[in-house]
Amino acid sequence: MTEQGFFTEADSAEVVISRNAAAKDARLAEVMAVLIRHLHAAVKEIEPTEEEWLKAILFLSETGHMCSDWRQEFILLSDILGVSMLVDAINNRKPKGASESTVLGPFHVADAPELPMGANICLDQKGQPMRVHGRILDTEGNPIPGAKIDVWQANDEGFYDVQQKGIQPDFNLRGVFRTGADGSYHFRGVKPKFYPIPDDGPVGKLLRQLGRHPYRPAHLHYIIEAPGFDRLVTHIFDPDDPYIRSDAVFGVKESLMARFTPMTDPASGFEGEFLDLQFDFVLSRS
Amino acid sequence: MTEQGFFTEADSAEVVISRNAAAKDARLAEVMAVLIRHLHAAVKEIEPTEEEWLKAILFLSETGHMCSDWRQEFILLSDILGVSMLVDAINNRKPKGASESTVLGPFHVADAPELPMGANICLDQKGQPMRVHGRILDTEGNPIPGAKIDVWQANDEGFYDVQQKGIQPDFNLRGVFRTGADGSYHFRGVKPKFYPIPDDGPVGKLLRQLGRHPYRPAHLHYIIEAPGFDRLVTHIFDPDDPYIRSDAVFGVKESLMARFTPMTDPASGFEGEFLDLQFDFVLSRS
Repeated sequence: MTEQGFFTEADSAEVVISRNAAAKDARLAEVMAVLIRHLHAAVKEIEPTEEEWLKAILFLSETGHMCSDWRQEFILLSDILGVSMLVDAINNRKPKGASESTVLGPFHVADAPELPMGANICLDQKGQPMRVHGRILDTEGNPIPGAKIDVWQANDEGFYDVQQKGIQPDFNLRGVFRTGADGSYHFRGVKPKFYPIPDDGPVGKLLRQLGRHPYRPAHLHYIIEAPGFDRLVTHIFDPDDPYIRSDAVFGVKESLMARFTPMTDPASGFEGEFLDLQFDFVLSRS
Repeated sequence: MTEQGFFTEADSAEVVISRNAAAKDARLAEVMAVLIRHLHAAVKEIEPTEEEWLKAILFLSETGHMCSDWRQEFILLSDILGVSMLVDAINNRKPKGASESTVLGPFHVADAPELPMGANICLDQKGQPMRVHGRILDTEGNPIPGAKIDVWQANDEGFYDVQQKGIQPDFNLRGVFRTGADGSYHFRGVKPKFYPIPDDGPVGKLLRQLGRHPYRPAHLHYIIEAPGFDRLVTHIFDPDDPYIRSDAVFGVKESLMARFTPMTDPASGFEGEFLDLQFDFVLSRS
């Protein structure tokens, strides 16, 4: 920075930050200072040519043009750069022993039906039958009664109901359950399949250039809420999925694996073989 | 990073970077590694709430939506964050004594007419008359003959001809001149006025939130080319402009000031008082 505050290469970030001194919002000024400092440091490390800078500008513009009421390409960009997971981690630090969070994803719907414990959320009988069960516990191992369990999953072809309106029944593979006195839950579904994030836009092209695939390993989504406890937004994953170590959005955590075990059990509600999936969730006190 | 390469908050950047190991282009992998490292570091310093993260996503989306064939809002964002000037500086480091560069801006046109030395580039007689003159020199102080000087400027109301088609004559306040044996140049124009960058989009809104104005101080644009020398893209600025210390795009450099001095001189081609502007440009050898 010169005495007059003019731009110099050496002091570029501080020149820009000093110009924001009259910002109306202290938090905005703080956020911008951090962003400007890292952005300038990155540019100085990269030393982009003018052509590379223009490529970045055009990439951002195309990403913006891809955004609509139905598609959020900048969230996809945040996802594949691990930023969404980082923001999730920062906002959901849990005490030792509590279940870990992962990203919400775009397929939750607010008005899924509340179902009796044990219900089958698969409404079209397609796919490999699966029984899911476990308990909702506090960090001392006590059951949490009255916990609300909102679950949703892709079908055996890797699609959510909202992606296949008219093909899948409405509210297929979704349900809300409430635990009783013993904190346990159980319901029936089908084994979900891995699926790609939308990859026909600039983010998909970037993934290909980076030698990466767009797939998310098979998982079930959960939101679990109970009075006096932190809301838990998470998935459980199939450890045998081909993409378990390369989730395009980095959603997998080691603690969120649940093995799909083949089983027969007349009490399950299934006639023949089904997959048994057992997972206990531990909520932290709010 | 866990042994299996799963995401953890602590190693978030390295988990993401390791996933790009199969990138087809080594430069892309290098650029992405720097960007991911700084992006994750910035997020960790900022600790954005999920609402703040979504605000950033929506800001980027709106910025993209504003981009069209006529408007490049991401370039404006790059400009007001000082990134455009930084990329310019990195790509145009000059030896001691050579004139400094600044940004090209969006108003250059490729086919401006070549004019005889001394011509008046103001085609509509509006504004305060100005004579501009000086020399094109090498770093040893020798004149450069045959240098091509491409000059363009805003008018006395702060508009370029291309912004006021049908109001200003075509090619108003633009011209291309070539130096003779003595390396000197001179032409006539009008005193340019400061003007705002387009501020009716997300970038203008951000400027207001940061307590900043959208103005660029009055300047003349130059591209100077001569065989055997580096191309020089620069401006000269009015040191008395109200916005000289707060250019919205950080284009001002201390070495690029040229004082507008009131003067009368029958040899100037002007009848009464005019502003005299003298500036020598020094080119570096390529």
